[in-house]
Amino acid sequence: MATLTSITNTKTNMAAISTGAIDENDCKKPETFVLVEPYEECDAERQVCLSKRMIEFQEHLTERTSHLLGYHLNLSCNHLMDLSPLLRFHINNVGDPFKESNLGLHSKKFEVEVLDWFAQLWEIEKDEYWGYVTNGGTEGNLQALLLGRELLPDGILYTSRESHYSIFKAARMYRMDYQIISTLTTGEIDCDDLRAKLILNKDKPAIINVNIGTTFKGAIDDLDLIIKTLEECGFSDKQFYIHCDAALYGLITPFLGQAPKISFKKPISSVSVSAHKLLGSAMPCGVHITRKRYIGLFSESIEYIATVDATISGSRNGHTPIFIWYVLNIKGYKGIQQDVRKCLMNARYLRDGLRNAGISTMLNEMSIVVVFERPLDHEFLNYWQLSCLENMAHVVVMPHVTIKMLDDFLDDLVQKRNIWYDGYGDVQPPCLAKDIGVSNCSCLDHGNGLIDGN
Amino acid sequence: MATLTSITNTKTNMAAISTGAIDENDCKKPETFVLVEPYEECDAERQVCLSKRMIEFQEHLTERTSHLLGYHLNLSCNHLMDLSPLLRFHINNVGDPFKESNLGLHSKKFEVEVLDWFAQLWEIEKDEYWGYVTNGGTEGNLQALLLGRELLPDGILYTSRESHYSIFKAARMYRMDYQIISTLTTGEIDCDDLRAKLILNKDKPAIINVNIGTTFKGAIDDLDLIIKTLEECGFSDKQFYIHCDAALYGLITPFLGQAPKISFKKPISSVSVSAHKLLGSAMPCGVHITRKRYIGLFSESIEYIATVDATISGSRNGHTPIFIWYVLNIKGYKGIQQDVRKCLMNARYLRDGLRNAGISTMLNEMSIVVVFERPLDHEFLNYWQLSCLENMAHVVVMPHVTIKMLDDFLDDLVQKRNIWYDGYGDVQPPCLAKDIGVSNCSCLDHGNGLIDGN
Repeated sequence: MATLTSITNTKTNMAAISTGAIDENDCKKPETFVLVEPYEECDAERQVCLSKRMIEFQEHLTERTSHLLGYHLNLSCNHLMDLSPLLRFHINNVGDPFKESNLGLHSKKFEVEVLDWFAQLWEIEKDEYWGYVTNGGTEGNLQALLLGRELLPDGILYTSRESHYSIFKAARMYRMDYQIISTLTTGEIDCDDLRAKLILNKDKPAIINVNIGTTFKGAIDDLDLIIKTLEECGFSDKQFYIHCDAALYGLITPFLGQAPKISFKKPISSVSVSAHKLLGSAMPCGVHITRKRYIGLFSESIEYIATVDATISGSRNGHTPIFIWYVLNIKGYKGIQQDVRKCLMNARYLRDGLRNAGISTMLNEMSIVVVFERPLDHEFLNYWQLSCLENMAHVVVMPHVTIKMLDDFLDDLVQKRNIWYDGYGDVQPPCLAKDIGVSNCSCLDHGNGLIDGN
Repeated sequence: MATLTSITNTKTNMAAISTGAIDENDCKKPETFVLVEPYEECDAERQVCLSKRMIEFQEHLTERTSHLLGYHLNLSCNHLMDLSPLLRFHINNVGDPFKESNLGLHSKKFEVEVLDWFAQLWEIEKDEYWGYVTNGGTEGNLQALLLGRELLPDGILYTSRESHYSIFKAARMYRMDYQIISTLTTGEIDCDDLRAKLILNKDKPAIINVNIGTTFKGAIDDLDLIIKTLEECGFSDKQFYIHCDAALYGLITPFLGQAPKISFKKPISSVSVSAHKLLGSAMPCGVHITRKRYIGLFSESIEYIATVDATISGSRNGHTPIFIWYVLNIKGYKGIQQDVRKCLMNARYLRDGLRNAGISTMLNEMSIVVVFERPLDHEFLNYWQLSCLENMAHVVVMPHVTIKMLDDFLDDLVQKRNIWYDGYGDVQPPCLAKDIGVSNCSCLDHGNGLIDGN
């Protein structure tokens, strides 16, 4: 337990500490601080320590936020401070967002407005969709694939090998048969392989996961070609269920003219998007939309909460729908469009910078995910918070990423690379030809072999 | 779209509004307010409306919070306002709480301290448990039953008919065989029926859900008798998996001498508790603990996030572990014990008041859930936010419930009942003998037939 030597304040709070009202030395280091043990009570000393630890944690978060490049997260969350008064309420959107329950502490009106907005974005009429605000992309995928399996109990799940791991997790959870489809160099699903596997399994319905886009390379599966392939293989629309895992790009492709459109005018069955990704949110959350006519089969009447529960969660976070509602209202369609454009431009800026420095790099068309040669140094990966796969790393150019951050990153990388690959001694930059294509590879065999960008 | 007639402020915020700086009539009613449409931008007028709507929502929540009696929610969340500065950060505890990932914006240190606290409470050594902070009781149950099924793939799920609906949902999701066990009048599982069904299915392993306690009646299944029954039926501890759904009582029974103890010294496999229930939290969350040796079988290595993911969620809320950590630190064991004692006393106070008024009532030993005759009037149910089941309603006497609230509720109920059952005309109070037992029933046949408490 923490003990303090000289505390005179009997009551304190973060504000007091942040203005320096309490001597920092009064408090032991965080490492030695432990939670209240059974039979202990919180005293004034501990309260000081608690506040101090919170301040330190905020400093840590501020520092880590300033150089995060490797994840699908928009870290611009300052606007949520406007909503902080809501933290003193428990808000619980238990069950179906469209059904009132006796529990009055919900934000379902806000939730439905959010859902309506996404329904309009993905072109489905108000009275034809059902959906809810999830705890994130994974829950959206779990919900969708469960629905697909309930509608097509013998269905086989088809998904590309570059799909998010929650898709494979769902197959295991739900005891579904599945086929893993190979991918092109871009990361897109290989529709030739899909076709071959569909034909082999023509006697069973197909549940297709479409990546809009993939987690690592940001590749967008060609939805239109997938639908065409299903039809050409003789699957009627009652024999397939298409789920669009649009975790990141569900809010990007609508703003791009060229990308295959996510639209319920096409024979798709569900779409999930993460809201903490492009929009930004303090905590993971997302939106899941499906066709209303499916959901009756799935839900069950639960008298206890005087509502019908068709959600995976049951008790659901009532704050996140308001966070999403607020951001959509503040930004509007135009604000999001501007964010998307900025991200695309900055992604191209980084790609060009990496290429000019002689580093193997790939940026898919319409993508904000820049894939490049895996940095050698763990400390470097950790500082920039990069995620890696085999010989690749990626930077996800989200709205909080500035040109200044990219410049700093590039300078740091080029400098460190000169050390890692000093004079091309024993260690050489890896060949990425098979990962990102020969034309994107700058290894000694395929590229110009430059190290310092000259 | 909302249009406003005369707004002069170009910048505002909630604080400005709450001090009356903006004329309320400037803003249209919430009903006419809609989300930003595609192609619109947020202007100053809309910002005023947004703030106004948030203020109105807070007023609504304050009002509804002041008379909520029917749900397992502790609405005392004011202390969370201390943590509001954290809302401006995205915090994401993706994957396993015990594994660091490159994503630095997590609160896993806090999460592990919370888990350690619960591990100590439920008597399992630090190096022998695994767990995580969930999005609530449902996720805890889903995680536990999935683990049970993975460990015992042919296992049959046994659960009482009064179990939470998430248990039945899990059975369907996971394609598990299950047996529904009957209950005693108290709501406890009937171990004679359990024994009969175990014997009929001796060739298959048993996955047992134990309710600590049930959602509606707050009944605590007799864990020790269940273990004895399994052993007497010849099940070795490798042939069964016991999950304790301790959504509410996981934090109550440790403070009661008499209740069967939740302890990993017994052959149990997992425990889940909701933290937004007894402890109170702005949003649903919970704690799930299991034996570490189980989890290796279950997790899969996901290079992408440089962590091993054994959780259902994937990306996980990083704020809720801090909320729990903070409450545990402020209250400590003694503070929670005091809350539990207060709830038990107040529940008995309400039971006595209802009985004295001649109303059918049941309060199980060691329970804070008072079950009574279902009120006739929907408006009354809605005002007090009561949940009902058949002829029963219940009040869950949580820490935010005061004697004053209970007195007001009782006065209101007695007064309304005099109107509903005016002179025992055509409508009579229902008989609850089969629901809560003859001795607890006050209907004309079984009770004293009093209506006004005299």
